[in-house]
Amino acid sequence: MIDPSSLVDQYCHGILRTELGLGTFEAQLARTEGPPAPGTTLFDTQTGFAVRRWCPPLLGLEPHCPPALYLARRRELGFLEAGRRLLRGSGITTYLVDTGLPGDLTPPDEMAGAGGGEAREIVRLELLAEQVADTSGTVESFLANLAESVHAAAAHAVAFTSVAGVRHGLALAPEPPGPGEVRGAAGRWLGDRRVGGELTDPVLLRHLLWIAVASGLPVQLHAGLGEPGARTDRTDPVLLTDFVRATAGLGAHLVLLHGYPYHRHAAHLAGVFPHVYADAGAALVRTGARAATVLAEILELAPFGKILFSSGAGGLPELHVVGAQLFREALARVLGDWVAEGAWSPDDAQRVAGMIAAGNARRVYGL
Amino acid sequence: MIDPSSLVDQYCHGILRTELGLGTFEAQLARTEGPPAPGTTLFDTQTGFAVRRWCPPLLGLEPHCPPALYLARRRELGFLEAGRRLLRGSGITTYLVDTGLPGDLTPPDEMAGAGGGEAREIVRLELLAEQVADTSGTVESFLANLAESVHAAAAHAVAFTSVAGVRHGLALAPEPPGPGEVRGAAGRWLGDRRVGGELTDPVLLRHLLWIAVASGLPVQLHAGLGEPGARTDRTDPVLLTDFVRATAGLGAHLVLLHGYPYHRHAAHLAGVFPHVYADAGAALVRTGARAATVLAEILELAPFGKILFSSGAGGLPELHVVGAQLFREALARVLGDWVAEGAWSPDDAQRVAGMIAAGNARRVYGL
Amino acid sequence: MIDPSSLVDQYCHGILRTELGLGTFEAQLARTEGPPAPGTTLFDTQTGFAVRRWCPPLLGLEPHCPPALYLARRRELGFLEAGRRLLRGSGITTYLVDTGLPGDLTPPDEMAGAGGGEAREIVRLELLAEQVADTSGTVESFLANLAESVHAAAAHAVAFTSVAGVRHGLALAPEPPGPGEVRGAAGRWLGDRRVGGELTDPVLLRHLLWIAVASGLPVQLHAGLGEPGARTDRTDPVLLTDFVRATAGLGAHLVLLHGYPYHRHAAHLAGVFPHVYADAGAALVRTGARAATVLAEILELAPFGKILFSSGAGGLPELHVVGAQLFREALARVLGDWVAEGAWSPDDAQRVAGMIAAGNARRVYGL
Repeated sequence: MIDPSSLVDQYCHGILRTELGLGTFEAQLARTEGPPAPGTTLFDTQTGFAVRRWCPPLLGLEPHCPPALYLARRRELGFLEAGRRLLRGSGITTYLVDTGLPGDLTPPDEMAGAGGGEAREIVRLELLAEQVADTSGTVESFLANLAESVHAAAAHAVAFTSVAGVRHGLALAPEPPGPGEVRGAAGRWLGDRRVGGELTDPVLLRHLLWIAVASGLPVQLHAGLGEPGARTDRTDPVLLTDFVRATAGLGAHLVLLHGYPYHRHAAHLAGVFPHVYADAGAALVRTGARAATVLAEILELAPFGKILFSSGAGGLPELHVVGAQLFREALARVLGDWVAEGAWSPDDAQRVAGMIAAGNARRVYGL
Repeated sequence: MIDPSSLVDQYCHGILRTELGLGTFEAQLARTEGPPAPGTTLFDTQTGFAVRRWCPPLLGLEPHCPPALYLARRRELGFLEAGRRLLRGSGITTYLVDTGLPGDLTPPDEMAGAGGGEAREIVRLELLAEQVADTSGTVESFLANLAESVHAAAAHAVAFTSVAGVRHGLALAPEPPGPGEVRGAAGRWLGDRRVGGELTDPVLLRHLLWIAVASGLPVQLHAGLGEPGARTDRTDPVLLTDFVRATAGLGAHLVLLHGYPYHRHAAHLAGVFPHVYADAGAALVRTGARAATVLAEILELAPFGKILFSSGAGGLPELHVVGAQLFREALARVLGDWVAEGAWSPDDAQRVAGMIAAGNARRVYGL
Repeated sequence: MIDPSSLVDQYCHGILRTELGLGTFEAQLARTEGPPAPGTTLFDTQTGFAVRRWCPPLLGLEPHCPPALYLARRRELGFLEAGRRLLRGSGITTYLVDTGLPGDLTPPDEMAGAGGGEAREIVRLELLAEQVADTSGTVESFLANLAESVHAAAAHAVAFTSVAGVRHGLALAPEPPGPGEVRGAAGRWLGDRRVGGELTDPVLLRHLLWIAVASGLPVQLHAGLGEPGARTDRTDPVLLTDFVRATAGLGAHLVLLHGYPYHRHAAHLAGVFPHVYADAGAALVRTGARAATVLAEILELAPFGKILFSSGAGGLPELHVVGAQLFREALARVLGDWVAEGAWSPDDAQRVAGMIAAGNARRVYGL
């Protein structure tokens, strides 16, 4: 049985600090535009079925028990105790936490406490820029404060993450924007903007990416499925090819998050460019019983030293559990089959499992 | 053994009312541009092999018997009796029939009679518009008659279907065209048009879609593989994202037909938008022995309440048989494996099988 | 056990005529932009693992032995003897060799000698044009010499191959460029060009394709993964649809090489157009333990008389071995499973295996 001894979750979020009912729980199972269609429920999805498979036993119930029974037990324990049991049952030993989502989510130190592991922060670039904009009076102070904030974040964070693909699409001009261009874009954005306004300007998104790359910290780029209603084709990681080439040799790693349904494209880039890495994570939580196949598709072109586990989970600790369990089971099945067929040696399989589960992340993020 | 008790074919055509020889039968097995290459035959395809597997036993022959033997037996029985035996052997209990294909095909009532089941009509929007154009003298009368025809069709049909993606591509402007724009486009089209001329104008294609949506009936959109020589990338359902968002909340369901090779994209849209549904059908007939995998790929992101079986068959009743048998076998294998692995409970698997085979279609089409 | 008796490799290159160390050997395992990332090795890829599985036994070692041990044994035998043992162990009986790659690679006659089989030449169109440009003084002489060179090559070569997709992208205007357009483009290219300069002008790339098509020889078009840093989406074979239609009925076969990750699209074109063929080759070498799945994906839509084996190998004879072994094993597994499930008959499976392995290539290339 191939089973890695530790699991570094290279990308997740905190969990909700509120008690959940059946409806509010269900709404966290998928990212949709609008409520479920009449006559349907989000429990009837791969994610819903995976939650019902893996989580009830961690709270003392039978696998696949009805959602209402599970939610009743969860409330009986309280969200704090349920969260503690679930996270500790996930097998994740280190959480890298993107703190850039809205909502009452646990920060990294609480994730570490609840999960009985370590936690480090990932800083979301666009949120950082929006926070700087909220407190900067002029274009000059905004740009100076932004540079300083990225520099300061680089001192404590373990990585930056960017949702430029979701905000604008990944077909960004590959070179860094010039100083005049950046000042012009900043002026227009700050002039039009109300407090809390989102950053979607492509010049500023590129500027952010380049100052993040210059910091030397790994930069995680969202690709493939992202915001529910976004045009998925605009986040095909192949669109990043020229940006990736432009950032080669500068010392920063680029990590392509999610990827699905373009995960084979992400794996290809990880194979071609030394500084590019592919995620094997969020896609598994979404595809449930199909996780082994999706993982195997990533393993086609991506060198084994370039693949990193994540859960992509947030909101519900159930999603951390599902992400970790599906990954572990998929890894054991896929690599185990290859060993059984004689395609891989048992030693190689065990070694590669450890790399994808934790070793590659430790090297890339300097853990 | 997971096996749904009834099967609603949400999209098919009638069958040919003529006796067929080896060559005319072969030509119906695939949609190509030109005859098979020298030295090859369309029987050497997944569809051809699937027909040879499933159909000979229904006519009293061994599976995989040579095509010539099968055709001889088919002619011996006569196309009427052969069609009756085949359709009744398919297990399909309800046929939703797109009556918009040319050729001497059985209408819905004959499908019901031959198949021993029920049948309802699906109205093809572009054909309706062409028929209205053939009998309308002016732009004003064309537009008025079109609105009336759609309204009248909505009273008896079970759904509309659109081949706008095949005619123009799915990258249509998402909003409804303005009245002046529609009148201008109608004037140009009617002015240039001879009787029977095809509708390809994007403004009129959009106008049609919007009046169909306004009728409240489900609208089926062809996506993925369609006309043999069409640019497949122009029918990627992801191109519909903005149109889908624009039609949310109006009360009409949108059903993405076919989808393959972009069926994962169609499944994603079905997961995100409450009013979008994904087809699990025509792709199976085309991919034969690979049907279980293609079905499983659709089951990754599409909620189980949003997937609808179809055969996509037409011309040959053999294709209805193959569509139904491949679907049933694929469903039993895919869900059965997940139950065997512990990923799904047996009860859930049986329930989901019934939903995809018939229950979802009954709800969406009000059967 | 389904196993074809002979194997025609419809697309490969010669092998290096130099002794290799661990680093120079590793660099041949993948096409990358830059050396492997620190802490990673190209041996930790599907190709690396497949080489370690299949090749050591041909040199008297255990499968999966460490790379250093393998390389030591290889040097001990010498590259000539090692190459001879490997090629003869591949099972390939005929090599169609693209002679258009740079480097000290064995020409076809040496491949035949070392491999104990036959070999024929494939002429790379762009290299031919560059060689003609190196020795032509004027636009008129260049164009006349080019036509003559293609004509002369057609007399001895077995096919032409084009990398227009890699050089420019496959979204080429479908019709042949006019004479004035060609002269203008040739004038600009020859005027700017230094000896050895690459041909990337889209007008001249199209001109080359059309004179190759006119020669009547099969034309192989690179699609999908090609040069490491190329924008993969620009080589999606679906972009060729209009060019394919424009060349229908002219007598020349078009063979879509590689295809992956768009191999389902290539298979679709092979299914629609009588003169189009799909490759089942290079993708297997890259995807290793996943070869059976990738082959099965090609077998979804491509008629079985339209699929051709290749190794796509070059540089290392190990890649010819891996290409052939992965293909043979994948074919036996995929078709064997379908026979076991009752989907295919044993006779059909054996017959189709022979077609894909050798028969189709013999017919298409007139071997």
